[in-house]
Amino acid sequence: MTSRPNHKPKVLIIGCGFGGLEAVKALSKAPVNITLIDRTNHHLFQPLLYQVATAGLSAPAISAPIRHILRREMKRGNLTVLQAEVTAIDAADKSVVLDDGERLDYDHLIVGAGATHSYFGHDDWAPYAPGLKTLADAFDIRARVIGAFERAERCADPVERAAWMSFVVVGAGPTGVEMAGTLAEIAQHTLAQQFRRIDSKLARVVLLEGSGKVLGSFVPELSQRAREQLKRLKVDVRTGCKVTAIDETGVTYEGHEGDVQLINHLPTHTVVWAAGVAGSPLGRSLAATANAELDRAGRVVVQPDLSLLEHPEVQVIGDLAAAHSYDPDHPHAEPTPVPGVSPAAKQMGRLAAANLLRRLKHEPTEPFRYRDYGSLATIGRRAAVVDLAVPVFGAIRFSGLFAWLFWLFAHIYFLIGFRNRLVVLIDWAWAYLTFERHARVVAETPRATESASAPPLQDAPDTQPLA
Amino acid sequence: MTSRPNHKPKVLIIGCGFGGLEAVKALSKAPVNITLIDRTNHHLFQPLLYQVATAGLSAPAISAPIRHILRREMKRGNLTVLQAEVTAIDAADKSVVLDDGERLDYDHLIVGAGATHSYFGHDDWAPYAPGLKTLADAFDIRARVIGAFERAERCADPVERAAWMSFVVVGAGPTGVEMAGTLAEIAQHTLAQQFRRIDSKLARVVLLEGSGKVLGSFVPELSQRAREQLKRLKVDVRTGCKVTAIDETGVTYEGHEGDVQLINHLPTHTVVWAAGVAGSPLGRSLAATANAELDRAGRVVVQPDLSLLEHPEVQVIGDLAAAHSYDPDHPHAEPTPVPGVSPAAKQMGRLAAANLLRRLKHEPTEPFRYRDYGSLATIGRRAAVVDLAVPVFGAIRFSGLFAWLFWLFAHIYFLIGFRNRLVVLIDWAWAYLTFERHARVVAETPRATESASAPPLQDAPDTQPLA
Repeated sequence: MTSRPNHKPKVLIIGCGFGGLEAVKALSKAPVNITLIDRTNHHLFQPLLYQVATAGLSAPAISAPIRHILRREMKRGNLTVLQAEVTAIDAADKSVVLDDGERLDYDHLIVGAGATHSYFGHDDWAPYAPGLKTLADAFDIRARVIGAFERAERCADPVERAAWMSFVVVGAGPTGVEMAGTLAEIAQHTLAQQFRRIDSKLARVVLLEGSGKVLGSFVPELSQRAREQLKRLKVDVRTGCKVTAIDETGVTYEGHEGDVQLINHLPTHTVVWAAGVAGSPLGRSLAATANAELDRAGRVVVQPDLSLLEHPEVQVIGDLAAAHSYDPDHPHAEPTPVPGVSPAAKQMGRLAAANLLRRLKHEPTEPFRYRDYGSLATIGRRAAVVDLAVPVFGAIRFSGLFAWLFWLFAHIYFLIGFRNRLVVLIDWAWAYLTFERHARVVAETPRATESASAPPLQDAPDTQPLA
Repeated sequence: MTSRPNHKPKVLIIGCGFGGLEAVKALSKAPVNITLIDRTNHHLFQPLLYQVATAGLSAPAISAPIRHILRREMKRGNLTVLQAEVTAIDAADKSVVLDDGERLDYDHLIVGAGATHSYFGHDDWAPYAPGLKTLADAFDIRARVIGAFERAERCADPVERAAWMSFVVVGAGPTGVEMAGTLAEIAQHTLAQQFRRIDSKLARVVLLEGSGKVLGSFVPELSQRAREQLKRLKVDVRTGCKVTAIDETGVTYEGHEGDVQLINHLPTHTVVWAAGVAGSPLGRSLAATANAELDRAGRVVVQPDLSLLEHPEVQVIGDLAAAHSYDPDHPHAEPTPVPGVSPAAKQMGRLAAANLLRRLKHEPTEPFRYRDYGSLATIGRRAAVVDLAVPVFGAIRFSGLFAWLFWLFAHIYFLIGFRNRLVVLIDWAWAYLTFERHARVVAETPRATESASAPPLQDAPDTQPLA
């Protein structure tokens, strides 16, 4: 028996988010050698990350080691998982560069490197207003929120104490609405009577939004219901406000009162940034070496089949892709932009894998079609909005308690791994009955508040739909 | 109705460990004003901290917010909880100084500030060999262990790869034995087949001990059984070894082979320090202002009733106290030193509270009597040693599977809070059935590896007994 050289095509997948994970699974039985690279050792269920930030869930409840999730695929022998940071893509050379200088070459590349938060050119705001994309972000926000109440309890100066008891969330997309609603619940219920010098119920939660409404991606009816539910939870919602400065003293913004334009300053030491996202810096790498076009948010403009025009062996999926949906039943309809949501990322991951296999067989690729099963957003205890797109039947829209229960079970259903689902269910049942948030512990670690840079103003396209 | 000045005595309690928590509970119904100060916002169930470090449990499973644990006591109105670091005690002035410069005065002080790890004068070892006292320590060790396998997988150089796959635990007390046994289990089972370039089963776990045996505080029979169980788990146990250097290349130690003295170097990048503990730096503060005597490990030598000779209004409890146990049934017997274990800390906390109330009533105080219900130490999957002291009956000693089950249920029983117990039980049942360690996720935070200074060589007195 002589050993034969391995002629299987080398497939490199960057990022183990919703898209990358689906692509790996879809390719694991194919005659290819896959290398999956991620900066972290875990896949993160990002739709529930705000629960880690607000101490409702522990990090392991919403994340799982990549090697564990893909243990069966790894046993097939054609998958290598590397924890590494890709610092550059060299599409001309068909290779990527890792943080330690190692260069890996590929025959096919799938880039699912995701997005980071964007401060619209004001990166100096980052230390005062962390965004929520990673577990480190969530721990940082948790430490700030819990620490703010502790500082208020120790504070003798009433003005300074009021600043510690003020919380500002910038951006009223789904993440901002969830954060604001949950912060209000913590102040009103979880911490009630647990302090002696302050009354946590007097804490102020302000939700600032640039546009005229909350949850702007939803239909006006649900947007209005969300606003009412936030009000009921004692969140101070202010729309039509443009943030002009964030520093250690608080948030400054321009607003309107009738026709009068006002400049307001909210004194606070705890700001959460949920206002903008930008594509991963690897997009710029593709622009430089593959002549890829980037949109305003730094996302890579892809062909209908998710590949790059000049480099069909490169595909971009998930939040990094500026993709469109093509409806084969209506070939002359205008293609619609795909939102940056997890079901879209999963669907792109599966199509990228399928198109890659089609290319190997010299078959034509297929355009991306986003199947939108609807959107849902939670607001707080017993408050959520749901907008389902049911085939044939049409739209079903509801809000309130039933929407909240629907949201809860949908999210638990889609959580990776049985154990996590069970633990999350127990955690939530317990939290619901007792108002206690069990993960309210802060380790003595230093804060991590580094953040990436990014392009101009736009609302976060991070609606959280089904599936 | 006229308001009367509050003449209740001011009781200050430093530290919400096992001792401080018991003292607060015992005083919460007494006519005193209590202020409890802790550096963190949580009480930590330290005996299970190694499970967080080895990714078996999440941090919230073994810790709970102090304000939540004491919510009923807080409602009584005489307890204030502050999250703050006490930087100095001024016993002459009857006050303490906080990190922000605030000074709090007291009528009675109970100091339960605990211990930190001691590098025997080699604080330069700290960055390479973190100890295990806080949640931050546990996250640091978890990140190092998981990161080491990830680095090995990426490493092309076989020598360097072997260093990444070598793990050294210094100190074979209960913490060191638990860490070594669990690291071996991770390499042999949890990670098996989850890598492509390395075989995790070839990882090497070395347990270095200065004395001649492991678990030196146990009877020789159980010590020997522990050594055999470690060997079965594939831990390389080396006793009679004195560590002389730890740096980025590995651990250097002096050992013996027959009569020949050898100097060995173990190439590794992952070292866990479980060899020595030292009293909190606040002990030095008491030495300076209350003329308190410190022992070799920096612990405060206390009177039989746990108070200080020149300052009876100051009591020291828990790991910071160099206390003795007095047996009232044998008044002429030599008092025995109290080990640094959680049952002793709890008992000291209760006695300090009782003696404080006796002083308020001008009654004589009582000496400390340590009730030792026995010791247990776990080694790994289905391996533990138990040494019970049963009244009248005498000692019951056993090891192996039954000891492990006994250890498991004893620890779950003593965990704070029903919810945590349930979640820990589910986590362990799941881990036992699947070999998976669910908390194997590492956030992208920077490492925190600062550590405190300390005195000369001695073994860790951190046996983990019952009760």
